[in-house]
Amino acid sequence: MEILKTKADMQAWSKNKKKQSRTLCFVPTMGYLHQGHVSLMEKGRPLCDELVLSIFVNPTQFGPNEDLSSYPSNIENDLLLAEKAGVTAVFLPHKKDMYPEHFQTEIKLQSLPRHLCGKFRPVHFAGVATVVTKLFNIVMPDMAVFGMKDYQQLQIIRQLVLDLDLDIRILAGEIIREKDGLAMSSRNAYLSEAQRASALSLSRSLDLARELVAKGEKSSALLRSKIEALIHSFPETEVEYISFCRPETLEEIEVIETKVLLALAVKVGKTRLIDNVLINPGR
Amino acid sequence: MEILKTKADMQAWSKNKKKQSRTLCFVPTMGYLHQGHVSLMEKGRPLCDELVLSIFVNPTQFGPNEDLSSYPSNIENDLLLAEKAGVTAVFLPHKKDMYPEHFQTEIKLQSLPRHLCGKFRPVHFAGVATVVTKLFNIVMPDMAVFGMKDYQQLQIIRQLVLDLDLDIRILAGEIIREKDGLAMSSRNAYLSEAQRASALSLSRSLDLARELVAKGEKSSALLRSKIEALIHSFPETEVEYISFCRPETLEEIEVIETKVLLALAVKVGKTRLIDNVLINPGR
Repeated sequence: MEILKTKADMQAWSKNKKKQSRTLCFVPTMGYLHQGHVSLMEKGRPLCDELVLSIFVNPTQFGPNEDLSSYPSNIENDLLLAEKAGVTAVFLPHKKDMYPEHFQTEIKLQSLPRHLCGKFRPVHFAGVATVVTKLFNIVMPDMAVFGMKDYQQLQIIRQLVLDLDLDIRILAGEIIREKDGLAMSSRNAYLSEAQRASALSLSRSLDLARELVAKGEKSSALLRSKIEALIHSFPETEVEYISFCRPETLEEIEVIETKVLLALAVKVGKTRLIDNVLINPGR
Repeated sequence: MEILKTKADMQAWSKNKKKQSRTLCFVPTMGYLHQGHVSLMEKGRPLCDELVLSIFVNPTQFGPNEDLSSYPSNIENDLLLAEKAGVTAVFLPHKKDMYPEHFQTEIKLQSLPRHLCGKFRPVHFAGVATVVTKLFNIVMPDMAVFGMKDYQQLQIIRQLVLDLDLDIRILAGEIIREKDGLAMSSRNAYLSEAQRASALSLSRSLDLARELVAKGEKSSALLRSKIEALIHSFPETEVEYISFCRPETLEEIEVIETKVLLALAVKVGKTRLIDNVLINPGR
């Protein structure tokens, strides 16, 4: 497993592999890897000759009051997990290399970031779109894997790739959960034991909604109020949003008659957690 | 010379050439080609195995009161000039293919578009940056040639390539002029005979500034007032801007002591013309 610390080295490595007609799969991350990330690497591994992982805590996707300075890190463990998952190159760039003096370009999408997390994190998705485009141009992959836990991010990357005509296939990795249902997230490390129990309110909400929709409930408003009550029955919780929306455009749905995305953001203590599920009322 | 009318065909053509290790040079244009464009193709031709020309009047770089609907076109003649200049593929995309339904991505630079033409054409350079990025991703060139007449555009593309880590070498083509000094431009076709005479006020202004700087004049304010007087001595002229600025950042310079860009935009009748020159006071 090679470790590449500059854009120039990474790009040269990729160009060399491409010259040898080797196919590249890419998994971009912010590090502090967990089984969710591992599942993305495992998804990509059999599909290509080379598997590239990037670890970069991208400052431009954090708002001024967000957790950039405290974001957890454990590079040593990340490299162990990467090697075990069959990664052939790890890209570990420095901020100054990614954003040198005079850097001034931003990539923004119009509609997709107006929904869900984008409402509460106004700079987030421009930061994501810009850094992912940069990483794509540096790593030059044939395909890239993104997790469905960040569903809005996944949709934005899919649209970005279409809109900018990037010749990269985007693959979606399922949400990986702890045994009790909590979606894996690097931010789970922030939770106290009591908060860890309250964090279950998210996955329980998804279960509840799935059950009610299966029983024939079609009203988003009613479902939202039941979910909100459930979440607030757990201590230290504060709902940021509960959204039933179209899986493609993320536009709100009032009456659930076709496939719907239920997406949640909840603060548990100071930790902001998200989760989601696709629900098909037909089934 | 192949003519490719869809993104898919163009991208497949380029990928095939790259598989054969052929190098690609790219000249993006809006068509109605003149000797300025020809010089860009001639600059690129000896540097690569394949020379790709695109002709696309990009709607997103025109403001609401600009000349999108009247922009001149002569595809037949363009193809003749392209073939003569050694172009091996022409990309002629349709608007709907470049901007399908749900298209929503925009690329913006922070500082470079705040100067010169960007002040008067607020949407222009985001449109340029976005379409050029798309064209780069479709054509996948090793190098691309842009004319120095659109100096601000050239600087923006150079910065865009740096910022987005595009692996493309940007080459600059000299301004090509008519015998009497008028910079070649597709928009010269709009000029009446009388306006054609007044259009000379731009290149005459560059000559005047060069002379005065050579004689030791250092004050931008003084030079600007002399140029303005010269331009307005020609009928039907209206100065939009006269700028002495740093060639890299386009920031205004008050006292000319190092290399300076003099850039002009002048309306002659309803036709907006631009021109520029790099002046080195040391010489």
